[in-house]
Amino acid sequence: MNERPIGIFDSGVGGLTVAKEIFKRLPFENVVYFGDTARVPYGTKSPETVKKFSLDNMKFLMSQKVKIVIVACNTASATSLGDLRARFSPIPVIGVIKPAVELAMICTENKKIGVIGTESTISSNAYLKEIRTLDFNVSVFGRPCPLFVPLVEEGRINKRETILIAREYLSPLKEKKIDTLILGCTHYPLLKDIIKKIMGKKVAIIDSAGVVAEECEEVLREKGLLNRKNRKGWHKFFVSDNPGRFKKMGEMFLGYEIGSVSQIDIEKF
Amino acid sequence: MNERPIGIFDSGVGGLTVAKEIFKRLPFENVVYFGDTARVPYGTKSPETVKKFSLDNMKFLMSQKVKIVIVACNTASATSLGDLRARFSPIPVIGVIKPAVELAMICTENKKIGVIGTESTISSNAYLKEIRTLDFNVSVFGRPCPLFVPLVEEGRINKRETILIAREYLSPLKEKKIDTLILGCTHYPLLKDIIKKIMGKKVAIIDSAGVVAEECEEVLREKGLLNRKNRKGWHKFFVSDNPGRFKKMGEMFLGYEIGSVSQIDIEKF
Repeated sequence: MNERPIGIFDSGVGGLTVAKEIFKRLPFENVVYFGDTARVPYGTKSPETVKKFSLDNMKFLMSQKVKIVIVACNTASATSLGDLRARFSPIPVIGVIKPAVELAMICTENKKIGVIGTESTISSNAYLKEIRTLDFNVSVFGRPCPLFVPLVEEGRINKRETILIAREYLSPLKEKKIDTLILGCTHYPLLKDIIKKIMGKKVAIIDSAGVVAEECEEVLREKGLLNRKNRKGWHKFFVSDNPGRFKKMGEMFLGYEIGSVSQIDIEKF
Repeated sequence: MNERPIGIFDSGVGGLTVAKEIFKRLPFENVVYFGDTARVPYGTKSPETVKKFSLDNMKFLMSQKVKIVIVACNTASATSLGDLRARFSPIPVIGVIKPAVELAMICTENKKIGVIGTESTISSNAYLKEIRTLDFNVSVFGRPCPLFVPLVEEGRINKRETILIAREYLSPLKEKKIDTLILGCTHYPLLKDIIKKIMGKKVAIIDSAGVVAEECEEVLREKGLLNRKNRKGWHKFFVSDNPGRFKKMGEMFLGYEIGSVSQIDIEKF
């Protein structure tokens, strides 16, 4: 069981920001990553459809005999986590929302937290609900930023148009004087510098990747599931479409080249 | 047979630019429109996946007993038209590429034609191939414009960032001194004004919607399939996800409100 891989799924390439932290923190672990590139993006789709997609993805990861699953997609975490946990128990399933919220609660002093994400993530109010379970006196301001994903995917990280759009998206949050901003989408860490510049030095920018890796380590340790082999783990990448595009874009997210990427038919799972 | 509806499918909402022209040109025809909003966009996906999606969409339209099908999506037209025709003969299947190319060939004087579209459409070379079958001496310059779709879908039609991005996308085509530019994506007609301003008055901008409606009328007339009832036809809209979002965005494309939109499970077809 201990040598079984960690499973990670995302709607596409964005979850690699989470995978990168897992690779760094848990170098001896084997990892299977699945990106649902045939049906990406999830952020504009209905909760029911995202639930169905998440279930397929989970079934695929189970076929790979994973010991734990990380839902590295905010939209899927927001809509499907409870369902997946109930259905696949006792396999632990970790989402990206709770770890980010816990960190944000430590960071905020004025109790005004902003959340940016896809349309679905923001309208699901998943972050708001999670924050409310911890503290009822925090004000939460959500803002969808639908163009950030395509801008990142086209590599327009530091371009003028990206700054213009980011300023517009973020200005209502600045006006609310938030002191903590949660990046509620796995693509957004690539825009961290721009977001920091616009929000100012005093606003803490919360990126879930690091804390999710931390939580994954904790859960594995608790359950006695850490890989005890002292050698570098293997990393396998699967997608439901266009492995070439994933490879190319994956480099931007990981900072190094991905070896081979296999394509599977996700609708069969 | 004559009273049967015209079927139109697209990856999402963009095909409504074509539907609008059909409604205008053929007011007595009944129309079934299907937007594959659960799997949108097609423009970044592989030809094999788009072919599979197109087949599902076509099967759904056949279940609606259509008399003709318009593939109102450039990516699907580029990859799937031959397959669909072979498989569903004798139902006529019209794509958006050939009608646009024929019009472009009439417009060009210097025989330098530009084509803009999604990544898949441009890398398929479908426009180039179609132009070559008519005239081998035309130079064709393709350019993918991946951000145009999300910019349109967010309603950023006349914004500074859209102009910045459009200028960057179009400048290589201006340098090539094209005199005709094909809008190879059904979302792009909404950016026609900006594109015209950037390209200059001397460049003819070709939008396939009008000519596709013309071709549809011609084919129906030829085959004796025009609806002879002299009363306004009905229009039915189906999507594979998120009817609310389709309705909202559909208004921007049609210029008026869509009545009801039904959701179907496209993976069952």
